[in-house]
Amino acid sequence: MTSSDSAQQTGTGAAKDPAKAPAKDPWDLPDVSGLTVGVIGGTGPQGKGLAHRLAKAGQKVIVGSRSAERAHAAAEELGHGVEGADNAETARRSDVVIVAVPWDGHADTLKSLREDLAGKLVVDCVNPLGFDKQGAYALTVEEGSAAQQAEALLPDSRVTAAFHHLSAVLLEDPEIDEIDTDVMVLGDKRADTDIVQALAGRIPGMRGVFAGRLRNAHQVEGLVANLISTNRRYKAHAGLRVTDV
Amino acid sequence: MTSSDSAQQTGTGAAKDPAKAPAKDPWDLPDVSGLTVGVIGGTGPQGKGLAHRLAKAGQKVIVGSRSAERAHAAAEELGHGVEGADNAETARRSDVVIVAVPWDGHADTLKSLREDLAGKLVVDCVNPLGFDKQGAYALTVEEGSAAQQAEALLPDSRVTAAFHHLSAVLLEDPEIDEIDTDVMVLGDKRADTDIVQALAGRIPGMRGVFAGRLRNAHQVEGLVANLISTNRRYKAHAGLRVTDV
Repeated sequence: MTSSDSAQQTGTGAAKDPAKAPAKDPWDLPDVSGLTVGVIGGTGPQGKGLAHRLAKAGQKVIVGSRSAERAHAAAEELGHGVEGADNAETARRSDVVIVAVPWDGHADTLKSLREDLAGKLVVDCVNPLGFDKQGAYALTVEEGSAAQQAEALLPDSRVTAAFHHLSAVLLEDPEIDEIDTDVMVLGDKRADTDIVQALAGRIPGMRGVFAGRLRNAHQVEGLVANLISTNRRYKAHAGLRVTDV
Repeated sequence: MTSSDSAQQTGTGAAKDPAKAPAKDPWDLPDVSGLTVGVIGGTGPQGKGLAHRLAKAGQKVIVGSRSAERAHAAAEELGHGVEGADNAETARRSDVVIVAVPWDGHADTLKSLREDLAGKLVVDCVNPLGFDKQGAYALTVEEGSAAQQAEALLPDSRVTAAFHHLSAVLLEDPEIDEIDTDVMVLGDKRADTDIVQALAGRIPGMRGVFAGRLRNAHQVEGLVANLISTNRRYKAHAGLRVTDV
């Protein structure tokens, strides 16, 4: 079998573990309603949008920022019981921590929070992109992807990746009740990706779908560059649905 | 505006050409029913599957192979007026040439067809993937992507990229009438991507959606590794729909 044959989606592939496990129901997931979710970078558009949707769905949410003051202001604006704190306190008080900081500050922010994030389930949703006159493009990341950089910098955390393809505009729009998209969830431990999928599934319209190990995060992060091109062409806020799942 | 702000899908981004053109209707596309479509690597599962679907939709199709004999056999099997020829003749006789060869032979095949492909609209659908015990992963390509490699090797052709995420199993299954997926189409010239989108749209259930310039092909190609993981977890043949378009 050549690599190209395997590249067809036959569901078998060339690897030695040809899908012996039974098919998983994408909705057979743990109850995550009791978990506290922190959002590092929770005052930016994507972080605030996610905090809004999760809190509205009944999740306990803390928005974090470098400045506790700005975090408090964002929390007050968000309502739904959202609290604000500086990033370190947000990490310490949360079970699941969504990382939604600018790519520029990704490494430094995570380095500074290594101890606060120990033992936590970290969900990286950062997209390393560059921009020029032709639009957006995927950046090369030394570790392979933002998520793998997080994994390298946070050896005591459980790192996953998800929530890359969401439109901040839609997330923040109070007129919109449902977010029409699947969320690709990546990670090496099923117990962890199941929790992240369950969190995504709490938001009306959204569904979490397992989409591979962390080593395959780069293309999921970079795909935002393609969606930005799609959005420009069609004046849309594109999301993605995985069919046949 | 930081790169992260722009990375949100605001539809504006940081580039200087903020989507001044009117929204494009994804179905406002040229009539491609008179074009002859060649499929290089048309005897492999993906190439044969695509040839089957396009011919069934009424397109004139030629399947190419290194061996004209194998191409003739595949054409006879496919029916619907499909012809078979060696790769060079297939290229010369076609208006649009889909490249569906194994990644291993991608560069050598294209080098040998440079003159036959001059002036043609080339559609690269090759996914550079590696496989090991943990499954599939995206390979690093010196030129950036298979599509950019094609562009570098075929300076006299018009290179686009599309049809990466299709399940060969579904394409070849005679019991299945509709292929439930969008096709991400990449390229630098709108006239060319419009033709490829129109071709995708001829297959029932399928729709072509513009998804950026060729420099953003890598993550679209690599995403097949993620879909293979999704297929294994859910025993599915996953496709992708772009929402809000």
